[in-house]
Amino acid sequence: MLSINKKKIFNDPVYGFISIPHEIIFDLVEHPYFQRLRRIRQLGMTHYVYPGALHTRFHHALGALHLMCEAIEELRFKGHAISKEEEIAVCIGILLHDIGHGPYSHTLEQCLVKGISHEFLSVEFMKVLNEEFGGQLTLAIEIFMDRYPKRFLHQLISSQLDMDRLDYLKRDGFYTGVQEGAISEDRIIKMLDVRNDHLVVEAKGIYSVEKFLIARRLMYWQVYLHKTVVGAEQLLVNVLLRAKYLAKQGLQLFATPSLAYFLYNDIDRGNFDKAALDHFAQLDDYDMFTSLKVWAEHEDRVLSILCTAMTHRKLFHVNLESIEVPNERVRELERQVVEEYHLTPEEAAYLVMTGSTSNNAYNLDDNRIQILYKDGRLVDVADATDQLNMQYLSKSVTKYYLCYPKGLLR
Amino acid sequence: MLSINKKKIFNDPVYGFISIPHEIIFDLVEHPYFQRLRRIRQLGMTHYVYPGALHTRFHHALGALHLMCEAIEELRFKGHAISKEEEIAVCIGILLHDIGHGPYSHTLEQCLVKGISHEFLSVEFMKVLNEEFGGQLTLAIEIFMDRYPKRFLHQLISSQLDMDRLDYLKRDGFYTGVQEGAISEDRIIKMLDVRNDHLVVEAKGIYSVEKFLIARRLMYWQVYLHKTVVGAEQLLVNVLLRAKYLAKQGLQLFATPSLAYFLYNDIDRGNFDKAALDHFAQLDDYDMFTSLKVWAEHEDRVLSILCTAMTHRKLFHVNLESIEVPNERVRELERQVVEEYHLTPEEAAYLVMTGSTSNNAYNLDDNRIQILYKDGRLVDVADATDQLNMQYLSKSVTKYYLCYPKGLLR
Amino acid sequence: MLSINKKKIFNDPVYGFISIPHEIIFDLVEHPYFQRLRRIRQLGMTHYVYPGALHTRFHHALGALHLMCEAIEELRFKGHAISKEEEIAVCIGILLHDIGHGPYSHTLEQCLVKGISHEFLSVEFMKVLNEEFGGQLTLAIEIFMDRYPKRFLHQLISSQLDMDRLDYLKRDGFYTGVQEGAISEDRIIKMLDVRNDHLVVEAKGIYSVEKFLIARRLMYWQVYLHKTVVGAEQLLVNVLLRAKYLAKQGLQLFATPSLAYFLYNDIDRGNFDKAALDHFAQLDDYDMFTSLKVWAEHEDRVLSILCTAMTHRKLFHVNLESIEVPNERVRELERQVVEEYHLTPEEAAYLVMTGSTSNNAYNLDDNRIQILYKDGRLVDVADATDQLNMQYLSKSVTKYYLCYPKGLLR
Amino acid sequence: MLSINKKKIFNDPVYGFISIPHEIIFDLVEHPYFQRLRRIRQLGMTHYVYPGALHTRFHHALGALHLMCEAIEELRFKGHAISKEEEIAVCIGILLHDIGHGPYSHTLEQCLVKGISHEFLSVEFMKVLNEEFGGQLTLAIEIFMDRYPKRFLHQLISSQLDMDRLDYLKRDGFYTGVQEGAISEDRIIKMLDVRNDHLVVEAKGIYSVEKFLIARRLMYWQVYLHKTVVGAEQLLVNVLLRAKYLAKQGLQLFATPSLAYFLYNDIDRGNFDKAALDHFAQLDDYDMFTSLKVWAEHEDRVLSILCTAMTHRKLFHVNLESIEVPNERVRELERQVVEEYHLTPEEAAYLVMTGSTSNNAYNLDDNRIQILYKDGRLVDVADATDQLNMQYLSKSVTKYYLCYPKGLLR
Repeated sequence: MLSINKKKIFNDPVYGFISIPHEIIFDLVEHPYFQRLRRIRQLGMTHYVYPGALHTRFHHALGALHLMCEAIEELRFKGHAISKEEEIAVCIGILLHDIGHGPYSHTLEQCLVKGISHEFLSVEFMKVLNEEFGGQLTLAIEIFMDRYPKRFLHQLISSQLDMDRLDYLKRDGFYTGVQEGAISEDRIIKMLDVRNDHLVVEAKGIYSVEKFLIARRLMYWQVYLHKTVVGAEQLLVNVLLRAKYLAKQGLQLFATPSLAYFLYNDIDRGNFDKAALDHFAQLDDYDMFTSLKVWAEHEDRVLSILCTAMTHRKLFHVNLESIEVPNERVRELERQVVEEYHLTPEEAAYLVMTGSTSNNAYNLDDNRIQILYKDGRLVDVADATDQLNMQYLSKSVTKYYLCYPKGLLR
Repeated sequence: MLSINKKKIFNDPVYGFISIPHEIIFDLVEHPYFQRLRRIRQLGMTHYVYPGALHTRFHHALGALHLMCEAIEELRFKGHAISKEEEIAVCIGILLHDIGHGPYSHTLEQCLVKGISHEFLSVEFMKVLNEEFGGQLTLAIEIFMDRYPKRFLHQLISSQLDMDRLDYLKRDGFYTGVQEGAISEDRIIKMLDVRNDHLVVEAKGIYSVEKFLIARRLMYWQVYLHKTVVGAEQLLVNVLLRAKYLAKQGLQLFATPSLAYFLYNDIDRGNFDKAALDHFAQLDDYDMFTSLKVWAEHEDRVLSILCTAMTHRKLFHVNLESIEVPNERVRELERQVVEEYHLTPEEAAYLVMTGSTSNNAYNLDDNRIQILYKDGRLVDVADATDQLNMQYLSKSVTKYYLCYPKGLLR
Repeated sequence: MLSINKKKIFNDPVYGFISIPHEIIFDLVEHPYFQRLRRIRQLGMTHYVYPGALHTRFHHALGALHLMCEAIEELRFKGHAISKEEEIAVCIGILLHDIGHGPYSHTLEQCLVKGISHEFLSVEFMKVLNEEFGGQLTLAIEIFMDRYPKRFLHQLISSQLDMDRLDYLKRDGFYTGVQEGAISEDRIIKMLDVRNDHLVVEAKGIYSVEKFLIARRLMYWQVYLHKTVVGAEQLLVNVLLRAKYLAKQGLQLFATPSLAYFLYNDIDRGNFDKAALDHFAQLDDYDMFTSLKVWAEHEDRVLSILCTAMTHRKLFHVNLESIEVPNERVRELERQVVEEYHLTPEEAAYLVMTGSTSNNAYNLDDNRIQILYKDGRLVDVADATDQLNMQYLSKSVTKYYLCYPKGLLR
Repeated sequence: MLSINKKKIFNDPVYGFISIPHEIIFDLVEHPYFQRLRRIRQLGMTHYVYPGALHTRFHHALGALHLMCEAIEELRFKGHAISKEEEIAVCIGILLHDIGHGPYSHTLEQCLVKGISHEFLSVEFMKVLNEEFGGQLTLAIEIFMDRYPKRFLHQLISSQLDMDRLDYLKRDGFYTGVQEGAISEDRIIKMLDVRNDHLVVEAKGIYSVEKFLIARRLMYWQVYLHKTVVGAEQLLVNVLLRAKYLAKQGLQLFATPSLAYFLYNDIDRGNFDKAALDHFAQLDDYDMFTSLKVWAEHEDRVLSILCTAMTHRKLFHVNLESIEVPNERVRELERQVVEEYHLTPEEAAYLVMTGSTSNNAYNLDDNRIQILYKDGRLVDVADATDQLNMQYLSKSVTKYYLCYPKGLLR
C-alpha cells in the first residue's frame, strides 16, 4: 500500500480526479525534470486563437497516466496477466513519454537544437533518471523503446490508439472549447482487448474509434494547424533564427543563461552532451517569452519588428493553400517589405515565411488499429468501417503557408 | 452594425462562445495593455495546488464582458432603459476593471509597488486609454468610479453580486476542478432587476444567491486561501524583499529592464509617474518567474534557497491556525534555520514567515444584496434567507499562517 | 413586452434555461394538445438500451424553439430583416412541428393509423389551433408548409440543417449518454447566414457541419437503428397487429376508449375526421404500455407471449444484416416456433419478424447545405469538404433485420 | 470472472458508464421486479415543473450501485477487509434498496396502501427474491436490515451519507437542471474511511460534506418541496381518495386489474398478503396516469375536475406558508367552490387541500457524520465545521400548504 504521505490526488477539470498509483510515480512527479513540464504549455502559441488553451505538458502527462491505470484495470478484468512490475513500468513510461519536450518544441527543433527530436530527448532524460533511481526505470525504458516481449504494453504508450493520443485529444478539445474534438476515451478504453500480443478494439467500439479518427483530423485543421497558430509559430522560428544570427555577430542579447547557451552555441545531435542536457532541462516557455518581450525593444529592426508582432499579438497575415507558393510571389512580397520597412533584402527575408505542413488521421503503414469481432475475427479498422472512407482519412493532406506583414498587397 | 473585420468570437470552455459586441471593445481588446493580461494568470500560484488553474485575467475579463451583455439584455427585457452609450460604457468598464492588475498582484503590492492598489492602477490605465481613444472612455470611467447618476450600472461592475464575481467564481471553479465552486450565474442574471436605482434579485432567485454566497466562502477556504497557495505567495514576497535588499546593496540581479526598474527604485503612490506606468505595463508573470529561475543559482544563499524552493516546487511547510502565532515560536524556528542552513539571524528571518489572512462571504456594511418579492417588498438577503445563518457568513474569519522549511521541528 | 404572468423559464439540462419569447407561444404551450407531448417520449423504446433516453417531444419542441430564437437573433445581427410577425410565426412553426406525433409514431403508422404521417397530422392540429386562436397561426402555417416567399424561414424549421435536427441530435446524444452524438449547435447557429433566400453556412463553420453530418450518421447506427431498438419496435408492431386481428374477431381487449377506437376501427387518410383527431389527441405512451401490461395476461397466447416479452424486457433475438433475409430462413424459424410454442403456422408468423431499415446522413437530391466563402462564393458542402467522402455519407445504407424468440436455432 | 454474456455496460449521462459487477446482479437486474422500476419515475410529478426530471428508479438504483463499487474499492485501498461475499451482498442491498417503491410512493402510502412504507415492501420483495435465488440474498438482507456485525456496510446503504443519497442528489440535480444540487460524489467517496466500524470522512473532505448538506437542503426547497410539485401531489391524493370513495359506492371505474384491486379493496399492513404483493408488483406510473386520463371524462364531476386539472396541467393555486392555515380560510374557500362549481360541501372539500410538509438537511439524533482528523480524532461534522450553522441546518423546517382552484379569491 502507498505510504500515506505519497498518496496524492490531483483535481482535474477533465476527469475529476487523478490519483497517483505508486510511490515511485509520486517521486518522479516531484522531480525537477517533471516539475519543469508545469512551465511548458501543451499547445504552445495556440492560446492566441483559443484563449483557454493554456494547459501544460504536466497536466497532460498526469491525464495520460490516469487513462493508463484504467486501461490496465480493464485488460486485467478481461483476463490478461500484467504483473505489478509491468504495471509500474508502463505507468512510468506514459508519465515520462513527453519529458523531453522543450518549450514550443516543433519550433525549437527547427532552430535551437537542430535535428534533435523530443523522442530522443525523452529517452536521454529517462536514462539520467534511471541512474538517480538506482535502476528502477529499466523496465519502463525497455517498454518505452519497444524492446520488451509483451508488445501490447508499448502500444498502450505509443500506437495509433495510445493513452497519449486519447488524453491529448480529450484535453485539447476541452481547453480550446472545440467540442468537435470531444472523444469517448472512457468507452474506447472499455473496448480494449489484446490478441496476438496486439492491442485490439471490440467490434461494438467501432463507432467510438471512427469518431476518434474524425475528431483527430478535425482537431488538426481546426486547432493544431490553424493558420493563425501556424503563422505565430513561424514568427517564433524567425525570431530565433534572427537572434542566433545576431548572436553569431557577437551582439548582446537579453537571455537567461540557458537560452543564451543555445543561442551562442550550435547544438545538434553530435555535440548534445550532459552540459547541453542540463541547460535544456532549464528551458521553458518563460525563457522564450521573456526574451521576446525585451527583444521587442532591440536595436536590430528585424528582431524588434518580429518580437513586437508577437508580444502585441499583431500577427502577420497568413495564407494556407493547397498548392505550393510560387517563388516569385515570395520575392514580390519581400520586395514590398524592403520598400515599406526600409530593410535590406536579406533582412526582408525574415518577414516573409513560407513552407508546408501536413497530416493524416490514420496511418495505413504503421501498426493498424484492429477490430475484434465476437467470432474472433480481427479486421483492420480501415476494412471494418462502412461509415468512413479510410483511404481518404489516411491520405496525407499537405497545406502550404505564406506569412507576411499585414498591409502588404498580396 | 459591427464592421465585419471586427466581428470576433472567442471560444470559451466555460460559456461556449463569447462575442465582441462593439467596435471599440474590439479595439480595446487588441490594445497591448489588454493583450498583456494574456500573460497574467488569474490565480497566481494556485496552479501549484490545482494544476488546471492556468487561466488568465484576459479570459476572465472577456467572460465578465459576456455576462454583462446578458445582464443588460435581461434588464432591458424587464423594461429598464439603458441607452446604447450606457451599454457601451458599462461594457468597457467591465472589460477594463482588472486592467491595472500586475503579476501576482497581492504579492507585488506588498513589496514592489508599495501601497498602490490595482484599483488605482486600473483607473490610471483607463485615463491613458481615454486620451488615446479621443475621450470615448469618459462615460465608462464615470460609471466605473461610481460618479454616474444611474448607480445600478456601477453595481453591475462592482458590488456584492457583480459580473466580475459571477465570472471569477464560475471560472475559478471550472479551471481548478473544484465543483463546489460552481454557481448558477445564468440563473442569477435572469433574476436581476432594478428598484430605486439599485440592482436587486427576484425572490425566486434566492436559492441561487444563497448558493453563490456559500460557494464564494468555500472557494476562499478551498482555493484562494489554501494553505499551500498562501505559503507559495509568502515565499514569493520574501524572494522579492530579498532581491530588493540585494539590489539596494548594489548587487547584480538578472531581470528584465522593467522588473529591474521596480527592484532598483522604491516606487510608491507618491512617485508613480508615467515612466513607472510604462514599466508596469511591461510586467507580467514571465518577468517574475524567469528571474526566479535564474536567481535559484544566485550566490546569495537566502535568495537561492527561496527561489529553488519555488521553481522545484519544494514548498515550505505551512500551518494555518485560528490563533495568532506566538513570537517565541517564530524565534525558535529562526534559530533552527540559523543552525540547519548556516545563516545569520537576519538571513534566517527570510525563511520563516508569519502573518494573517481573512475573508467574509458577505459584507453587511456595504451595499447589501436586496431580494425583490412579488408584492414589491425589498428585503436584505440576510433577512430573507431562512436557510443560511448570514450573521455567520458575514463574519470575517481570520487565519494565521506560519511557513518554514520542511524538516524543521515545529 | 411579455405580460409578467406569461413570462416563463424552463430549466433544461441541455441548454440551462429556455425562455418563452411571446405570449401566444406561452398559450400554445399551455394547450392540452401541446401538454400531451409531455407523455410521448422522443425516442420510443430506445430507453430499453439507453436507460437515460426518457426525454419527451415536449422538451424537444421547447429546445428547438430555444435554438430558433438564437438563430433569428444571429440572422438579424447579420443584417437580414425579419419582422416581429415573421419571428413569432417561425417560433410557432418550430414549436408545433411535431405536434402531430403519436406514441411510438413509426410503429403506429404501420398498424394503427395506416398511411397517415405525423407531418400530415401536425398540419391538421395546427389548423384546429388556428381556428381556436382566431387566425393567429395563419402565417406560421404558411411558413411551415413552405408557401411563404421568404423561404429561408421555412428552412429554419425544415431542411438538412434545421433547428429540429440540431436540437434532437444534441438532446438525444445527451440523454442517451452517447457522447459521439454531441454537436456544436451553438457554433453552427453562429455561422448561419442567408444568400439568395437560402440558409447558408459561413466557410469557417465547415468543420462543425462535417461533424454534424458524421454525428447524425453515427447516431443512426448507434441509437436510432440499434438492433435491440429495432427489435423492440417490431415487437410492438406485431402486438398491435395481433390486437387488431383479435378485435376484428370480436374479442374483448383492455384499452382506453381512444386506443379502442383505433383498434376496433380501420382508420386511414380517407376516413380521418374530427372524431379521429379527437381520439388521436388523447393517445400517448401511457395508453399503449398499460394495455401491453394487461394483455400480457390475455388468453390469446400470441398476444400474451409478445406482450410479456416487452413488459419483462425479455426481448427477441435480433440479427441486423447487409443482405435480404432469405424466405426459407424465415419459414424455418416459423416452423421451430410452431413446434416450440405449440402454435399454428398463422400464429407463429407473429413471432418471426423481418424487414429493412435504411438511412443516409446527407441527401444529395434535396436542398443541399451551402457553404459561403469570404469572397462570396457558394459551394455545396459535398464539394467544399476535403475531409469527408460525401458521396459515401449521402449513400443510403439499408440493413435487413430478422427477429425471433431467443433459444431458437438460427 | 464474469461470464461474457452477463457482462453488461449501461450508458449513463451522469457517470458515463455503469458496469454490472457480478452475475447475480445481472440476474436481479433482469428480473421483472427490477425491470418494473423502469416504469416508475424517481421524482413522480416533478417533471411538471422541471421537464427533464423523467429519470426512473431503475436508473437511480444502477447509479447507486456504481457508487457502491467505487466506495468498496476506496475502502479496500485504505486497508479495510471486505470479503467477496460481503461485496456482493452490499451491492445487492443497494441495488434493491428501492425495490419496494410503487408509483408516486408518498401519495400511494396516503391512500392506496394505508400505512405500508416502501421500506417494508423492499424487504418483502427481497425475501421473495431470496427464495427464488436459493438463499443467495440472505447476507444482503442481513446487511440491509442492519443485523450484520460489520455495521459500516449497512451505512453504505443507509445513513446520512449513503450511496443512495449521493446518487439521488447528483442525479436529481442533473435531470432537473438545478445546478445548485450538484455535489462532488466522487470526492466524498475518495474521502471515506472506517473507524470503530463506522463510516467516517477524512478532514480534507469537510467542504464537500458541507456542500452536500447545503445542496440537500436547497434541493428540498427548490425541487422536492416545490410548491407546484406539492400541489400536484395533493391533487393526485384527492383523485385517488375520490376514486376509492366512488368504488365503495359501487361505481364502475376504468382501471387495470391491479389498480382496481387496490381501489376496490382496503389494503393495509394487516391484510397485505402474497396476492397483494403480486398486484403491487404490477403497478407503475402507467396504471395511474392512464386511469387519470380516462377519469377526466367520468360523470362524477369531482373526479373529472381533478383529473382534468392534472392531465391538462391546469394545476391548482398553491400557497406555501410558515404558519398553519386557519380552518376558517379553508372553509371560506370551500364555500366559494360550492358556489363556483355547483358542488355539495362534501364534494367541494376534495378541491381544497391543506396540510404540512417538512425537512431537515442533517439529523442530529441519528448516526451523525463523523470527520476524521490526521491526528486520529473523530469529530461530529456539526462541531467540525466553522462555515455552517449546523444547529440551523439540522432544524426541521415545516411549511403549510393550501391548494385550491385558480380563479378563487384567496
